[in-house]
Amino acid sequence: MSIVTLTTDFGLSDHYVGVVKGVILGSNPDARLVDLSHAVEPFDVVGACLTLAASYSYFPAGTVHLVVVDPGVGSSRRPIAARAGSWLFVAPDNGVLELVYPRHRAAAWSRAANHSALQPISNPFHARDIFAPAAALLSKGTPPERLGDPIDDFARLGIPRPRPLASRRLEGIVLKVDRFGNLITNFRQDDLPTRFTITVGEALVQTLRHSYAPAAPREIFALSGRSGYLENSLNQGSAAEATSASP
Amino acid sequence: MSIVTLTTDFGLSDHYVGVVKGVILGSNPDARLVDLSHAVEPFDVVGACLTLAASYSYFPAGTVHLVVVDPGVGSSRRPIAARAGSWLFVAPDNGVLELVYPRHRAAAWSRAANHSALQPISNPFHARDIFAPAAALLSKGTPPERLGDPIDDFARLGIPRPRPLASRRLEGIVLKVDRFGNLITNFRQDDLPTRFTITVGEALVQTLRHSYAPAAPREIFALSGRSGYLENSLNQGSAAEATSASP
Amino acid sequence: MSIVTLTTDFGLSDHYVGVVKGVILGSNPDARLVDLSHAVEPFDVVGACLTLAASYSYFPAGTVHLVVVDPGVGSSRRPIAARAGSWLFVAPDNGVLELVYPRHRAAAWSRAANHSALQPISNPFHARDIFAPAAALLSKGTPPERLGDPIDDFARLGIPRPRPLASRRLEGIVLKVDRFGNLITNFRQDDLPTRFTITVGEALVQTLRHSYAPAAPREIFALSGRSGYLENSLNQGSAAEATSASP
Repeated sequence: MSIVTLTTDFGLSDHYVGVVKGVILGSNPDARLVDLSHAVEPFDVVGACLTLAASYSYFPAGTVHLVVVDPGVGSSRRPIAARAGSWLFVAPDNGVLELVYPRHRAAAWSRAANHSALQPISNPFHARDIFAPAAALLSKGTPPERLGDPIDDFARLGIPRPRPLASRRLEGIVLKVDRFGNLITNFRQDDLPTRFTITVGEALVQTLRHSYAPAAPREIFALSGRSGYLENSLNQGSAAEATSASP
Repeated sequence: MSIVTLTTDFGLSDHYVGVVKGVILGSNPDARLVDLSHAVEPFDVVGACLTLAASYSYFPAGTVHLVVVDPGVGSSRRPIAARAGSWLFVAPDNGVLELVYPRHRAAAWSRAANHSALQPISNPFHARDIFAPAAALLSKGTPPERLGDPIDDFARLGIPRPRPLASRRLEGIVLKVDRFGNLITNFRQDDLPTRFTITVGEALVQTLRHSYAPAAPREIFALSGRSGYLENSLNQGSAAEATSASP
Repeated sequence: MSIVTLTTDFGLSDHYVGVVKGVILGSNPDARLVDLSHAVEPFDVVGACLTLAASYSYFPAGTVHLVVVDPGVGSSRRPIAARAGSWLFVAPDNGVLELVYPRHRAAAWSRAANHSALQPISNPFHARDIFAPAAALLSKGTPPERLGDPIDDFARLGIPRPRPLASRRLEGIVLKVDRFGNLITNFRQDDLPTRFTITVGEALVQTLRHSYAPAAPREIFALSGRSGYLENSLNQGSAAEATSASP
């Protein structure tokens, strides 16, 4: 078993994805590469964090999840190899794993950014020189402990919590709009009492549903998403368009 | 052999594709996932139908083709497992397999939508809870007969036939415009006599060609596409732009 | 080992990618398909050339790189099977391998365009009928010598060299803008003396860096890219936007 998933903001029109795949297969020809997304908005760490958090746990134990989304490209941002639950992760230490750590007994290891797993780095492209080789090593069975020193001062992404206002009101934000126009908010189900009203633009959301099916046409309702955050969805339509809400 | 192809309207910027891939690999770690397209327009069943129809038969016998494009997301729309020719299919019963059935002795099985292959469904995401597990089971050798009761009342997509007008004229429609601006119409080669004129906007198409090569520059010509429908194409250009035609 | 990478301008919303993958797997079910890019701009041979040149060499020896980007679609353009270094290539003879040949002792073989590896071609789709079957054969161990007669009169892409102006000045062009707004130029590092000034729109670039990290915020600097060409990059921003430069 040596599945390696890829989540990047590299897009699909350049050579970056090819380089990363080549380096991994060059190191471990048996690795089975699985694209999660290369369409994360450039430098959108929150978007990558949500995409990963909603999907990583469905993969078989031992899967290596490689994430390369980092505004600090080429900087001295340290890379992380982590174990959380049954899965392994390689990512920059910028909080992109923030929704993974708290669900598991997580442990992470890191090394100075300029120490490549393969060789000294002159013209660095960290995805190629550090992240891909590290993912390949993990996929070949190298334990993450071997990739660095233990750390516990992970960078925090700092996804903001809803802000309490007067008279039992909370102010949340839209973290992301997905392809179908669902609004992923920073509310968690626990933040809401049994009866609530969410105001999105001029729309009022009062129902927490468990499926699209029972919703009336054009009804906007809340849904507890796999990332742990509430989504505001519109049955057979785009909640983002209907409310003009955006991150 | 356990190839599973994926055709969805999930796009590439969210977690949906990752979840589906994770569930399949979680059930069958030996499955070999092949992306056909995740860029079907949201809820465009006709587009998914054409994409699948033009490509499924090139894959090896035993390939499982998973299609998840459905405007009735989360509804009680029943899922289908089908065998047609040497291939297996998992899809919603919304007609997306309409161009597959008639080419083969096809047989299909279905179960109520809320009966997951794995477990009861509380907050259902049918791609994750029903379609992906079913595709994984087929890829492991479970016969489709085991996934439900035989059905023969498939939903029909109802791709319209050309409409007869006066004086030996037919009115067709554009089903899809592809990346290169080819217009996929609802004409079939059998619909046309030896000599014909297709009027597309202000352009006249009078030639059925078998290749782009002999066409004069800027000539619009008809081509019989792999989906079974005639395409109107412009040599080294976009027929869609030249004619302003669209679905 | 039978890795086959795919670089095309087919996009992801049609059936073309599926057909190519199906044909390869139909011929060699053990082939491991790796998408490099299907988002090359339609008919952009230079773009495909740069993408391939920057990534092919990271793959394991024996990898087959299949490139299908060709404005002369369906024409009598001959197909090429090539060996260069440890890698194998299948591509149209339109210069898309121009940056691969000179790095290696390259050799190429070709056959008339209408001679399919599999069968006579009536309604030809060359990616399906010629390129994909050839890539599959190479991936099964057929030597490229078997796919045609040796040729050495490759078509040249003719990426222009910088043009000398008066008083030790050179005029170059932008070959491509990548997703992050980096400007890939036709300057090579050898074209520049130790001290130089590149004028891009109203911006002046005077520094050749080896990394993004030491650059001042909003500084535009030159970087030697993996394709062999200099890139003009803006730290944490888009050089393309900052300079309004484009190909």
